[in-house]
Amino acid sequence: MSRATTWVEKLDSISRTSNSLLCIGLDPDPKKMPVRDVREFNRTIVDATRDLVCAYKPNLAFYEAAGLDGLAALQDTIRHIRKIAPDVVLVGDAKRGDIPNSARAYAAAMFDVWDFDAVTVSPYLGGDSLEPFLERPERGAIVLCKNSNPGSADLQDLEIASSGRTLFEHVGDMVERLNTRGNAGMFVGATYPDQLRTMRRQHPLLPLLVAGVGAQGGDPAEVAQAGANQDGRGVMINASRSVIYASNDAKEYADAARSAAERLRVAFASAVATRANSSQR
Amino acid sequence: MSRATTWVEKLDSISRTSNSLLCIGLDPDPKKMPVRDVREFNRTIVDATRDLVCAYKPNLAFYEAAGLDGLAALQDTIRHIRKIAPDVVLVGDAKRGDIPNSARAYAAAMFDVWDFDAVTVSPYLGGDSLEPFLERPERGAIVLCKNSNPGSADLQDLEIASSGRTLFEHVGDMVERLNTRGNAGMFVGATYPDQLRTMRRQHPLLPLLVAGVGAQGGDPAEVAQAGANQDGRGVMINASRSVIYASNDAKEYADAARSAAERLRVAFASAVATRANSSQR
Repeated sequence: MSRATTWVEKLDSISRTSNSLLCIGLDPDPKKMPVRDVREFNRTIVDATRDLVCAYKPNLAFYEAAGLDGLAALQDTIRHIRKIAPDVVLVGDAKRGDIPNSARAYAAAMFDVWDFDAVTVSPYLGGDSLEPFLERPERGAIVLCKNSNPGSADLQDLEIASSGRTLFEHVGDMVERLNTRGNAGMFVGATYPDQLRTMRRQHPLLPLLVAGVGAQGGDPAEVAQAGANQDGRGVMINASRSVIYASNDAKEYADAARSAAERLRVAFASAVATRANSSQR
Repeated sequence: MSRATTWVEKLDSISRTSNSLLCIGLDPDPKKMPVRDVREFNRTIVDATRDLVCAYKPNLAFYEAAGLDGLAALQDTIRHIRKIAPDVVLVGDAKRGDIPNSARAYAAAMFDVWDFDAVTVSPYLGGDSLEPFLERPERGAIVLCKNSNPGSADLQDLEIASSGRTLFEHVGDMVERLNTRGNAGMFVGATYPDQLRTMRRQHPLLPLLVAGVGAQGGDPAEVAQAGANQDGRGVMINASRSVIYASNDAKEYADAARSAAERLRVAFASAVATRANSSQR
């Protein structure tokens, strides 16, 4: 068996062994957490779900909001995941984007300081702002194309005069061009299944991160069928609030998170299997 | 004398009393710093320049790249600036942008944890992603419109079919719409003076942050004339590397930074005065 060397290979491998497309968003919110301590909360969620996921995705916003203590808790969370679930992909949801000189510093932060396998990045500053996140073949960047929020239409859906296509489709083309090392991916919102299908059709081989299932309303089966590649993998489908806050009871939330994660894992897997069966007929 | 209550009023007030449009970017880079300690470096730069500036702008990338120690140094730097230069505007150059639920967490980080007056934000996710940064009238957001890097053309210069205008002009219109509390600004690169003039003409009242003078090649006089509002203020012109790394000698860099800052301050002020004189003729 060959050892996974890039985060994309790692994703393919773990998705197969866990039979899971589920990514859990670790977004600790003091107003919703059933316990006070972020370390304890994250550790409990991870311990309860580690065999059901292909990825964990901490969103840095929630750690930064808790100051240096929050960031120290993120560091401990990452170390814990590396220790007990080394085969799971670790995505830093940071949505960074800056001029090349600063982007290099952000890439150092995300990969050397935080040790993420892949990081979400924002494309507004163009190709040269994304390259620093793609220079290491084993790590990489997932570029925001179409987001799950209603306001994403404001810019992302604008029609570009030269092509008659949307801005987010232009971003998809840019990702394809930048993907010379096979370590770039696209971020698409689960709340826009038609756009998700478009992006998968236009880019059959790029890995996808799809966010917005659960609390934001994306349909699990539809998203899995639209996002999976021809092997039924190549997509991480993220749920945050619907899993980690499935219960607000300090004694119940581990089991509740596991049940919610398992329901999603099965829903994704059976939707993809159904698709595979019907295409074989 | 009325007390400044919003960051925009604060900017107007300090630009007048210091007769300066200069913003210094505090971007500590271990490869370029003449001393090892980020706290010492920042403190020295601030102490040497505090009467010559309207703003300081730490770019969070450089602190995050140094891990938790780097972020602790940022915290100390901010406290030092608040103590010895309380009238100077403090801009967090973070270029954040996320869906509203996460953007609220980023806004809490930037304003409550870091205590920035204003924060740079990326518009790719649309209006609802920016609103959390504009909810507090005294603090606010500076929205990336046109950046200084060559790659900024990839998306920002695309012509939108519905209007025949560029994407960055659409963003400018969005900022104007979001500016219901008078606390929104625009970020424009110094390396594109024509685009800077366009944005100032289209938005005569919005405050501007202009970056890319010095190391990136923007011309100080041209930028000051293009960026200032009709009162000769309303713009922060950022220089980072050309000021803070003016000397790499540990004994000289404070004086060298002060000289470089003073040259820029005077260049901006005389360019704006020249413009005012010629328009009065």
